[in-house]
Amino acid sequence: MIKYEGLELVSGGVCAPKGFKAAGVHCGIRKNRAKKDLAMICSDQLCDAAAVYTQNLVKGAPILVTQQNLKNGKAQAVIVNSGNANTCNADGEAKAAAMCEIAGKALNLPEEDVIVASTGVIGQVLELEPIVSHAEELAKALSYEGGHDAANAILTTDTCEKEVAVRFELAGKTCTIAGMAKGSGMIHPNMATMLCFMTTDAAIDHEVLQKALSTVVNDTFNMVSVDGDTSTNDMASIMANGMAGNPLIDSVESEEYELFREALFAVLMNLSRMIAGDGEGATKLLECVVTGAVDTQNAKIIAKSVITSNLFKCAMFGEDANWGRILCAIGYSKADLDIHKVEVILSSEAGSLQVCKNGAGVAFSEEKAAEILKEEEIKIIVNLGDGNGKAVAWGCDLTYNYVKINGDYRT
Amino acid sequence: MIKYEGLELVSGGVCAPKGFKAAGVHCGIRKNRAKKDLAMICSDQLCDAAAVYTQNLVKGAPILVTQQNLKNGKAQAVIVNSGNANTCNADGEAKAAAMCEIAGKALNLPEEDVIVASTGVIGQVLELEPIVSHAEELAKALSYEGGHDAANAILTTDTCEKEVAVRFELAGKTCTIAGMAKGSGMIHPNMATMLCFMTTDAAIDHEVLQKALSTVVNDTFNMVSVDGDTSTNDMASIMANGMAGNPLIDSVESEEYELFREALFAVLMNLSRMIAGDGEGATKLLECVVTGAVDTQNAKIIAKSVITSNLFKCAMFGEDANWGRILCAIGYSKADLDIHKVEVILSSEAGSLQVCKNGAGVAFSEEKAAEILKEEEIKIIVNLGDGNGKAVAWGCDLTYNYVKINGDYRT
Repeated sequence: MIKYEGLELVSGGVCAPKGFKAAGVHCGIRKNRAKKDLAMICSDQLCDAAAVYTQNLVKGAPILVTQQNLKNGKAQAVIVNSGNANTCNADGEAKAAAMCEIAGKALNLPEEDVIVASTGVIGQVLELEPIVSHAEELAKALSYEGGHDAANAILTTDTCEKEVAVRFELAGKTCTIAGMAKGSGMIHPNMATMLCFMTTDAAIDHEVLQKALSTVVNDTFNMVSVDGDTSTNDMASIMANGMAGNPLIDSVESEEYELFREALFAVLMNLSRMIAGDGEGATKLLECVVTGAVDTQNAKIIAKSVITSNLFKCAMFGEDANWGRILCAIGYSKADLDIHKVEVILSSEAGSLQVCKNGAGVAFSEEKAAEILKEEEIKIIVNLGDGNGKAVAWGCDLTYNYVKINGDYRT
Repeated sequence: MIKYEGLELVSGGVCAPKGFKAAGVHCGIRKNRAKKDLAMICSDQLCDAAAVYTQNLVKGAPILVTQQNLKNGKAQAVIVNSGNANTCNADGEAKAAAMCEIAGKALNLPEEDVIVASTGVIGQVLELEPIVSHAEELAKALSYEGGHDAANAILTTDTCEKEVAVRFELAGKTCTIAGMAKGSGMIHPNMATMLCFMTTDAAIDHEVLQKALSTVVNDTFNMVSVDGDTSTNDMASIMANGMAGNPLIDSVESEEYELFREALFAVLMNLSRMIAGDGEGATKLLECVVTGAVDTQNAKIIAKSVITSNLFKCAMFGEDANWGRILCAIGYSKADLDIHKVEVILSSEAGSLQVCKNGAGVAFSEEKAAEILKEEEIKIIVNLGDGNGKAVAWGCDLTYNYVKINGDYRT
């Protein structure tokens, strides 16, 4: 977990901010009874809300319904199932809308104030019966300590829950922002992401909230790649219930907006690292730090190209300092750069090692390289010397287990 | 091997056209003495020549030297080593130029008439000594039956030689076009390709030859992807020595140009299929056929997006009819299409099966799907209903062996 000055990491997940309850249960969409498959989050008060969605032309039905429900910038609850994406189904939108209706009824609030999401296999008809028959149980299970259960229920091939909450001061009031996410496979977000549900007790206008979310997602989730496949169901939503009692943040020009944005960045950056490190089959978290690019956009293109290269990812799995593949991925990234100035450094807790200077190899100790690459968190530092652009991207290695998991996902 | 009317498939590889000798030897760039690592092709006469190169910003040193040597559109010989890419080396260009000089001396022809190429690890200094000490042996080994030895010597992780030769009539004369290629990993050509060396005895002006090559490469090699990584050393060259005796083809408007282009297409299309089917670790050749796209460009984008998806490639390895991943890859391709009209059919020698209609799933027999996907050659047919654009792309499945080969390539 990366810490930031002025921010305190706290436990409790999406229930860490005031006035948010959550729960997760097994309802039967998944056959495995040991795996929770239905999650709910509910705020004590109506919230300002914002969301970003996948840019895939094929959009999951829940996304279309959520977009509709968030048009007024308000929401109070979230319902999510795992095990079925409810995507590419002729009856998908009707089923997603029914999920909102079921949740609204159980919580006694308007269905238009419900955010709905689904994750799992594409193109299999979603049965509503398990959700209908477990909605009451789920609503009753809601508690101020239920964040972890909810974080568990949204997982698919993830191996661990992904939760972050940070506490900070806003105009003399203690505010909290929290998020839970699922990632693992089909992860290469574009303008939106895998599933992520955030809560905050800060008071913030929904238009300003949307701006903060979109800005921060561009530098966090959109810089993660597990396998280059942009999912059909990516969504990140945030609900702000204002119960921290801070004066409403209603402008992006205020100091409070900056503080809020920074805290949100800390939450999403940490979730991004968790998603990358827990990519399907992954044994290593890879972080590519690009500096000296012509501008930020070019730095982003390069960082993401390196982190997305299958060949580079395999080399990291093999703990092989095959830096030529990094140069190759920089070269085909279509970024604007002078390849003759490129410098590459491999770094981890075991130390740092320069492997490339002026676009050509330098003599290095293979022994030292092996030590560095043995670690579970590897940093690839690319210095370009072309300007002031910098960016960070996160990914993971490509392993036998990725192939295993995805060679037989449906069965 | 796909056959075309009016074209006869013949043996002999790059030596099938009149007046071309070839050879392949082990010179010692590779440690494994059983593996040939140095190839040569030589024409009895000076040829019109053309080539296309990688669009990677990082370009192998041999590419820069070959570009220089082909400026006058003439060449007579090719020298290629495997085991070392001679790329990202400070002394790379000097070494590549020296390879031309060594070949020219051994063959008694100007070094400017030599095409040079290298394939293997990036960023390791190329030792010239093995080439110097074996140049005479290689030149002496040249023969009209040496095509297969040359095709063998250029392989890296390929599991088989890739050679095609076709014979056809041109203005009453029998002409032959042949090619040998290597592929396997770092294969996602962009405007050029993996290594491919073609020979023909047709008489054709080098500018017209360049046009034919560029056009055909766009529909063949540029539609192949093994792993999404565009290599630094991709190159495809062709030498035409005119010994078939046909009247010189000096215009793209002629009927003879069309016949030549079609024969060249047959050679490169078959080599493309061989490269895809022999991708690193591959167990299956995947062919994605897109029809009904708005235009050819959109059809190409969609076909290539499907064939490049890691998730789809893993599903094919697992023989799992997970068609949702095909829809997902179509959706993020950025192509212009109406997703609600998409139809997907899986096909192989075992039969055909529709799995998706109007962008949604249709009920299908999993048993039948399993039978179809058991085959080694799988066709994915995507019908869009948006227009007349069509395209074909070739790829392979993503397997444990891909990860194995690339987790430890250098050692």
